[in-house]
Amino acid sequence: MGNCAVGILMNPASVAVIGASEDQNKYGGRLFRMLLSHGYRGRIMPINPARETLLGTKTFAQIAATPEAPDVAIMAIPQPQVRETIEACAARGVKAAIIITSRFSDAGPEGAALEREIVAIARESGMRLVGPNCLGIISPANRVVLCSSTALAAAGLPLGRVGFVSQSGALMGTIFDKAKELGIAFSHVISVGNQADLELSDFVEFMIDDPATDVICTYIEGLKDPRRFAQVAARARQAGKPWLAVSAGRTRAGAKAAFSHTASIAGDRAVFEAVCREEHVTLLESPLTMMALATSLAEHPKAQIERIAVFSPSGGEAALAADEIEAAGLRMATLSDSTREQLSTWFAPSQSCNPVDTGGRTVGDGPDVVGTAASVVADDPDVDALLFAITTSPTLDRLAADVADALSADASRVPKKPALYVFETGRLADTARSTLRERGRWFSNNLREAVEVLAAWRARSTYTSSRRAERLEHCPREPHEPPAAGVYGEQGARRLFERYGVPVNREQLARDENEVVALAEAFGYPVVLKVVSPQIVHKSDVGGVRIDLYSEAMVRLACRQIRADVAKRAPDARIEGLSVQTQFKGRLEMIVGARRDAAFGPIVVFGAGGVMVDLLPVRAIARAPVEPDRVVELLRRLPLWPLFEGFRGERLDLSGVVDAIVRVSWLAADLADRDFELDINPLMVAGDRCCAVDGRLRIGE
Amino acid sequence: MGNCAVGILMNPASVAVIGASEDQNKYGGRLFRMLLSHGYRGRIMPINPARETLLGTKTFAQIAATPEAPDVAIMAIPQPQVRETIEACAARGVKAAIIITSRFSDAGPEGAALEREIVAIARESGMRLVGPNCLGIISPANRVVLCSSTALAAAGLPLGRVGFVSQSGALMGTIFDKAKELGIAFSHVISVGNQADLELSDFVEFMIDDPATDVICTYIEGLKDPRRFAQVAARARQAGKPWLAVSAGRTRAGAKAAFSHTASIAGDRAVFEAVCREEHVTLLESPLTMMALATSLAEHPKAQIERIAVFSPSGGEAALAADEIEAAGLRMATLSDSTREQLSTWFAPSQSCNPVDTGGRTVGDGPDVVGTAASVVADDPDVDALLFAITTSPTLDRLAADVADALSADASRVPKKPALYVFETGRLADTARSTLRERGRWFSNNLREAVEVLAAWRARSTYTSSRRAERLEHCPREPHEPPAAGVYGEQGARRLFERYGVPVNREQLARDENEVVALAEAFGYPVVLKVVSPQIVHKSDVGGVRIDLYSEAMVRLACRQIRADVAKRAPDARIEGLSVQTQFKGRLEMIVGARRDAAFGPIVVFGAGGVMVDLLPVRAIARAPVEPDRVVELLRRLPLWPLFEGFRGERLDLSGVVDAIVRVSWLAADLADRDFELDINPLMVAGDRCCAVDGRLRIGE
Repeated sequence: MGNCAVGILMNPASVAVIGASEDQNKYGGRLFRMLLSHGYRGRIMPINPARETLLGTKTFAQIAATPEAPDVAIMAIPQPQVRETIEACAARGVKAAIIITSRFSDAGPEGAALEREIVAIARESGMRLVGPNCLGIISPANRVVLCSSTALAAAGLPLGRVGFVSQSGALMGTIFDKAKELGIAFSHVISVGNQADLELSDFVEFMIDDPATDVICTYIEGLKDPRRFAQVAARARQAGKPWLAVSAGRTRAGAKAAFSHTASIAGDRAVFEAVCREEHVTLLESPLTMMALATSLAEHPKAQIERIAVFSPSGGEAALAADEIEAAGLRMATLSDSTREQLSTWFAPSQSCNPVDTGGRTVGDGPDVVGTAASVVADDPDVDALLFAITTSPTLDRLAADVADALSADASRVPKKPALYVFETGRLADTARSTLRERGRWFSNNLREAVEVLAAWRARSTYTSSRRAERLEHCPREPHEPPAAGVYGEQGARRLFERYGVPVNREQLARDENEVVALAEAFGYPVVLKVVSPQIVHKSDVGGVRIDLYSEAMVRLACRQIRADVAKRAPDARIEGLSVQTQFKGRLEMIVGARRDAAFGPIVVFGAGGVMVDLLPVRAIARAPVEPDRVVELLRRLPLWPLFEGFRGERLDLSGVVDAIVRVSWLAADLADRDFELDINPLMVAGDRCCAVDGRLRIGE
Repeated sequence: MGNCAVGILMNPASVAVIGASEDQNKYGGRLFRMLLSHGYRGRIMPINPARETLLGTKTFAQIAATPEAPDVAIMAIPQPQVRETIEACAARGVKAAIIITSRFSDAGPEGAALEREIVAIARESGMRLVGPNCLGIISPANRVVLCSSTALAAAGLPLGRVGFVSQSGALMGTIFDKAKELGIAFSHVISVGNQADLELSDFVEFMIDDPATDVICTYIEGLKDPRRFAQVAARARQAGKPWLAVSAGRTRAGAKAAFSHTASIAGDRAVFEAVCREEHVTLLESPLTMMALATSLAEHPKAQIERIAVFSPSGGEAALAADEIEAAGLRMATLSDSTREQLSTWFAPSQSCNPVDTGGRTVGDGPDVVGTAASVVADDPDVDALLFAITTSPTLDRLAADVADALSADASRVPKKPALYVFETGRLADTARSTLRERGRWFSNNLREAVEVLAAWRARSTYTSSRRAERLEHCPREPHEPPAAGVYGEQGARRLFERYGVPVNREQLARDENEVVALAEAFGYPVVLKVVSPQIVHKSDVGGVRIDLYSEAMVRLACRQIRADVAKRAPDARIEGLSVQTQFKGRLEMIVGARRDAAFGPIVVFGAGGVMVDLLPVRAIARAPVEPDRVVELLRRLPLWPLFEGFRGERLDLSGVVDAIVRVSWLAADLADRDFELDINPLMVAGDRCCAVDGRLRIGE
């Protein structure tokens, strides 16, 4: 656990700046000055053999010459000097070192070998490492700036309640700068670089326990340790600390670019996304949207967002905002009669509704009309959040500040309801923007971005509370032996499914035609016949399947046809017999699969099958074992869900499907320590039952 | 046609400013000063009874006292004075008046009546009107500013090649201000207000012919005259002048808000969108995205955009950009070997590809490395456009300008390929932004917005060249009488469909059971039976349908069952007989409908039917008659399209479906002057044919 080391890193009592200078064109010069200029309260020990003092601070020739062991040493030095410097730091008893220098594992096998050496040196002495190839740490909460980004050159280190861990250094600096402009501030910001030692999860874990951080944001390119990521996410969820993430690689092109950037392997993206959802890690697509949501969440951690009230001085802008809101899956709030009545004190009747066109006033530009109106709307229990889409207006300079003041619930200036400000104007609104920043309010300059924040917030309220999956009865049925390794055909697979309680249609192997007929008569018509041969995987392709057999005559004909077709198309196959099965006709074919994911372990995957595969290709994924509630939630989000809600008065067997998927997930869980993959294809679903009618299974050693 | 009047409005030789003053807190004061300060070259005649001169300009007591008839009079006066002032303007021979004043049709029936009076007064004298309830005109091309928006208070009136007509005044001012910040400029900008006389289409028509305007942008809340809109759009398309539009009301909430704003009725949104697509009016969702696309299109009117090359100083940002690009339906360009080889002169091998991480240089910060690299990439024939995602970087201040200079094809500074700049940074990049503005380059501050511009651009290249639909042979078959008004049941509808050449299954009415059997034997099994009664519309609901009848015995049983069920459930219905039909089994059920749209005339609508209706609810719409190529294009965009591309080796009968839809569209076109609606439901589609097996039709008088 790197928690203790991270605590020291975020708030060191002393820092050695290796390669410190006064030259602001050099990393060491910028690092040193920024640490000084942002009010660091600990001891600074510049290391520079050529100087007695730097900017008035006593300087040491080498790390060994420091009067006390520095908590942290930071270095942005040429790559060939890093190894030696790390040795010196370890010898001096430095607790943690930040290596800004790049060209390690980011630059090929030679660099990776050097990186491993450095880690080994650090490990031996108990010293922890950040980086290499990182941009360092910015901690407004502790006034610690160990970062050379030009974004830190400007004065001011605004303090917020959002922590940010980034796998990209340049992005960290960029976001920091943009956030500052938009009134968004941080508790701690960390660039983790190559994660040779301390990694993203270590810093997240620190923030879970950190009282200065209310919401955790992360930029992720690839996970160093996926299972640990899942564990830390579960901890954050249990602790009730929201975790948001932007992760490059949601498309193939993005994954390729992210890989060439950090060489992190993304793994199966869909599984990563499923795990994030299970553990309530909210995935966003833009870092700025993430920061904005985090800032709002920090102030209103319990808010459930769906019904939005819009204010704008432009009716056109208000209409566009309403479009964005509904298109994003949110709803325009319906104001209560009482709210509308109060609004009509100031606005024309047609404007006393949502959206509120503040240009439609029937009274003059009193200084507080819009603020008072906003306050009335915020008090409406049918309104979850307010969105101010600000356009040119004679009162532009004070509009946003009036509203912010009117909504302030107390001296903290936290509004009584979440309130988002969007400036659609250009520089004309710079005064208004300043007034909001001064009030500790953030804003956006892009309507869609603001609505994305609200939409992501809403998505959080659809999370199911995580419960532990409980094993269903007779899952598996006793007596049960652990399944042996090997490739199972349909017969073997269906026996295993049946043992776990998954319904299968009646089936039995017949050796000859008379046995086939006897079984068909016993099962009842219609029946299905399938050839059984260890050499034949795709039975249909060799003419080995016949369906819709309604009589003895049809069955006998089918037997002969199958034998003839297979003899022609698979002459070398050894035929064990024919599988006789009852024919189960459902209204939907599903596929239910399971496998061991290399990153996260056993998972189940399910979705539409048959002809629907091409039309509705989206599948649901859950880690195994899965609880029934989560299966229902995932089914709801699949495009095939309307069939379970009923079509022309007919519904499908939801509880049967859920039960089958849960049972498959327990089979998957029982195979967790082995490599395996299985498919039920199709699971036929009718109105009152469902049934696995074909499948396959492969279990590794 | 208001074209001539619009020409005068945009470039008047003289302007009377009614209510002019020196008070910048009043509309009249701002109007007057802004006209003066932006370099208007015509004669200005302030109208103010209390003053001899205003800001040094000779002033007139009233419009009647002007020495020459002003081309244009503009007024922002109290509503009760407008009528009288318009009378005076008409009497003086003013050619066009701009009425900023609101509270006309925007404020209820009384205001609407006054508005009609004013229009009547103007019409009588041949004077044209802009507004009321508008914000006026800004014409950088002619240095004419007849607009009081505070967005005009700042100096400078940048000239561009984009014209903008807006149905919202505040939005116009807002966009103008934001555009200026982002380096986007206009030829003419018009706020049309209530469109009492001159309307959006008049100004668009002017811009189609205007040599100063290369691309037309519009903000639309509702169409005054939909058919004229379609005609003007066709003119723009034929003239090759791109027309872009943002239209509020793409959701129900947005339509409601837009309606409460301008009281314009949106009509059926889906039909509007279909017409826009047919006439190549590109719909966007954000005004700023529209302006940005227009600015780029003006420089590269012939560019086809799909393959994008990304540059960024941050590998993380580059990966996020690749994600946005692929998610938006664009592609990351694959650079040619020669381009990659040239890039490897400056970049590490792993970075000499797309995206180009400009931080991955192997050479120093030479002033022109990134610019030269960008130029090399722009020369690659496999690259359609370049996107620069700019983050913090030591070379931030000059990076964008270096690139802009390197890409300039000539003195005009138009880049050799479309190049988009995105600043993800905040104020740190303000110098870089200025350098781009100085070079006449626009930029975005939002990655997603820039990618939306590229995606909308790409969508334009999927437009089919419009051709005139040609009537198919035997459509309708002779002899043909125009169908009579009335509600047609299945029999009547299928006869009409058949007359237009739509394939229908064999069907005949049988009076008794023996006739039913005789028909079934003649048609061949299986057959379908349906009860025929003028009183029964939903035949299935009363047990009036039987399918899958394979033998005489089954047919006879079905006859009796239908009679018994119908007698019980619809005892009052007069049964005319049973419809005997061949049973046609397809693999897809479609619905093909047609109706007269109140705004745009006859249309056809088609999409998935049966159980798919709920799963794939998207339908395609085209004006009737429609040409086969457009039907194929529309089918391609439907979610059911994969079935036509082939599934498990089977394809559906595309040409048959297209033919049936085209024939239905001709039936619709022949009913154009009447109110009507019809449905084929379902059109059954198999691999080699399709067939209408049920339908209905209603024709109004």
